Amino acid sequence: MPQISKRGSLMPSSPIRKLAPLSQAAKAQGVKVYHLNIGQPDLPTPEKGLEALRHVTRQTLEYSPSDGYLSLRQRMSGYYRRFGLEVSPEEIIVTTGGSEAILLSFMACLDPGDEVIMLEPGYANYISFAQTAGVEVRTVTSSIQDGFALPDIEAFEKVITPRTRAILLCNPSNPTGYVYSPEELQKIKDIVLKHNLFLFSDEVYREFVYNGEPYTSALSLDIDDHVVVIDSVSKRYSECGIRIGMVVTHNKTVHDTVMKYCQARLSPPLLGQIVAEASIDGVEDYLKACHAEYKARRDFFIDGLNRIPGVVSPLPQGAFYTVASLPVEDAEDFCRWCLTDFRLDGETVMMAPAAGFYRTPGLGKNQVRMAYVLKIEDLRRCLRILEEALKQYNSR
Amino acid sequence: MPQISKRGSLMPSSPIRKLAPLSQAAKAQGVKVYHLNIGQPDLPTPEKGLEALRHVTRQTLEYSPSDGYLSLRQRMSGYYRRFGLEVSPEEIIVTTGGSEAILLSFMACLDPGDEVIMLEPGYANYISFAQTAGVEVRTVTSSIQDGFALPDIEAFEKVITPRTRAILLCNPSNPTGYVYSPEELQKIKDIVLKHNLFLFSDEVYREFVYNGEPYTSALSLDIDDHVVVIDSVSKRYSECGIRIGMVVTHNKTVHDTVMKYCQARLSPPLLGQIVAEASIDGVEDYLKACHAEYKARRDFFIDGLNRIPGVVSPLPQGAFYTVASLPVEDAEDFCRWCLTDFRLDGETVMMAPAAGFYRTPGLGKNQVRMAYVLKIEDLRRCLRILEEALKQYNSR
Repeated sequence: MPQISKRGSLMPSSPIRKLAPLSQAAKAQGVKVYHLNIGQPDLPTPEKGLEALRHVTRQTLEYSPSDGYLSLRQRMSGYYRRFGLEVSPEEIIVTTGGSEAILLSFMACLDPGDEVIMLEPGYANYISFAQTAGVEVRTVTSSIQDGFALPDIEAFEKVITPRTRAILLCNPSNPTGYVYSPEELQKIKDIVLKHNLFLFSDEVYREFVYNGEPYTSALSLDIDDHVVVIDSVSKRYSECGIRIGMVVTHNKTVHDTVMKYCQARLSPPLLGQIVAEASIDGVEDYLKACHAEYKARRDFFIDGLNRIPGVVSPLPQGAFYTVASLPVEDAEDFCRWCLTDFRLDGETVMMAPAAGFYRTPGLGKNQVRMAYVLKIEDLRRCLRILEEALKQYNSR
Repeated sequence: MPQISKRGSLMPSSPIRKLAPLSQAAKAQGVKVYHLNIGQPDLPTPEKGLEALRHVTRQTLEYSPSDGYLSLRQRMSGYYRRFGLEVSPEEIIVTTGGSEAILLSFMACLDPGDEVIMLEPGYANYISFAQTAGVEVRTVTSSIQDGFALPDIEAFEKVITPRTRAILLCNPSNPTGYVYSPEELQKIKDIVLKHNLFLFSDEVYREFVYNGEPYTSALSLDIDDHVVVIDSVSKRYSECGIRIGMVVTHNKTVHDTVMKYCQARLSPPLLGQIVAEASIDGVEDYLKACHAEYKARRDFFIDGLNRIPGVVSPLPQGAFYTVASLPVEDAEDFCRWCLTDFRLDGETVMMAPAAGFYRTPGLGKNQVRMAYVLKIEDLRRCLRILEEALKQYNSR
């Protein structure tokens, strides 16, 4: 039998989805599983998006252009303009979700063996995409004690080597919910210029900032040639399944190179583009309502978490995640146990062990990432289940 | 300004889409462009698929499982059973088009520097995916004089090195339309076993075989651990835009490794899965009609091509492409000229220069790939335009 590739065997399993077989088994037993593990919002997709779907009149579901329909890119250009950002449709490439946007940005900008700096804890799949691209990941560690703020610039300088080519920032951060301030972004800009780096800025949670301040995009940092923004409609309009993301850059060479990869895979999903395009304009009320709902959930959920003995969570200022520490030694073991052994009136919770969001071995071992994408009544139930699970787990 | 990656700059442009800006410019001038360059069928998607779309009742367009919905995989399992192939739903992974299926199969099975053998002329994007994966491509050349039949096995032995890990076969072939016989597949099997290789078999055109013989899938070769089948609903049901493909393998390690890559990108397109699932069963009449239509187009188009002075095309037995040689020195120059300079009553044709489907420099220079995916009346017009264009081009 031929052997699989070394890189394939080294590819990490997703910490978000690796426990999925256990949750499926629990569900097969009739157990209700609350999903705190995955950022799958329960809010509805905008009615305009769903409506567009019901009115598809084409008889052939054909390929779209490799960079996506111009009409969608024009809408996105208008969307950015509302944030004061001038981005032309020709500077936007529609991708198959933010996931593809990240991978293709890596491919276009980085060679195998090149290094990209990420913050940890960070979105676990960044590491998978880096591994896919043969790119080395260096991490700068943010700490739960500081609420996961940007570490001192010295921490960045320490991990920079001659092979460092880029910094990747997720702002607001998945998994911590941290929102980087203009001052922090200025520090990032300085180091990007000093070392002539690319700045990959994942801004898919841009709409979900709860600190009352205007959002600062990397596109406004006045380092156009360095910035590659990753965007996606998935979370913004609660349409994760349509797989529509974007690469946005003023750097024409990067744009044209990403395009070559896009041509190879022919086109992004047609139907998703139809939904996305219909979701962008005239949904101010929808976005306002989503924002209010997530903020209420955050306030409720984080407060509740910190009331559970031994649980500590910072108050995230953005996105809809938090990384919390639990009074257990091995959070992955606890997460598994919740799925396999623990039930409260036939219900349990699924969380993502946070260790998979760290690159440094040993870090985050007692932490979990939780997404507050459920209704408050469900979150209340989750808190109750979690409190009871911790009690029973620690008194086994 | 930071530099893009070396691999990005070396990434080839798609020969199918590279002339797209020229055709867009022609269209902007009001010219009608017949697309023979791309395998975008003009046949309608099955009504059942379109109907499923209009009846999507979910309010949130959520992520699907990373390997796709079980219900879709069950339908596909039933589909294979009708070909006498036993494939369980757990042996199928739904991907974002056949494109992703190819890339992730490469990632899972091959390491950077490993070699994969392909036939040339071959589907140009294979080379792009190999390049993305850092995999070296070795080619065995099939020739237009032999109708692009499988070359002697010695030709394979000649390019095998200690780093050779796989053979990739497209059957029926894009771009030549060649259908490999059971005897030819037996030869492939022998060499796969002798050198312990993977066999990637791209079978997306399986439904379109015109020689009256039953189709032989690599899955029936009794070398289960070696075979990774690439499949797609794109061409079969004329729904290229929904981006639904599959990786099918009995090799569990390969399956599980591909799955890790799939988890990183979260999920294949939700809406496409809904359409695909509804397209698979109860469409025998639809498939029969498509088959008859393509066969009629082939008969008409290939005959017409060979009637144009200096044009030579073999009679393809499958798919809906042909590679034809033209009485020009540089087919790419001719293809460009058709878009930029030539009009017949305000119309012209777009073809894909075949050199991009060869790996060996210099080969295929006077050849083009054409897809006969247009109505016969349009194909008649294309033949007329092509004949006149060749005449004018050669008498400039």
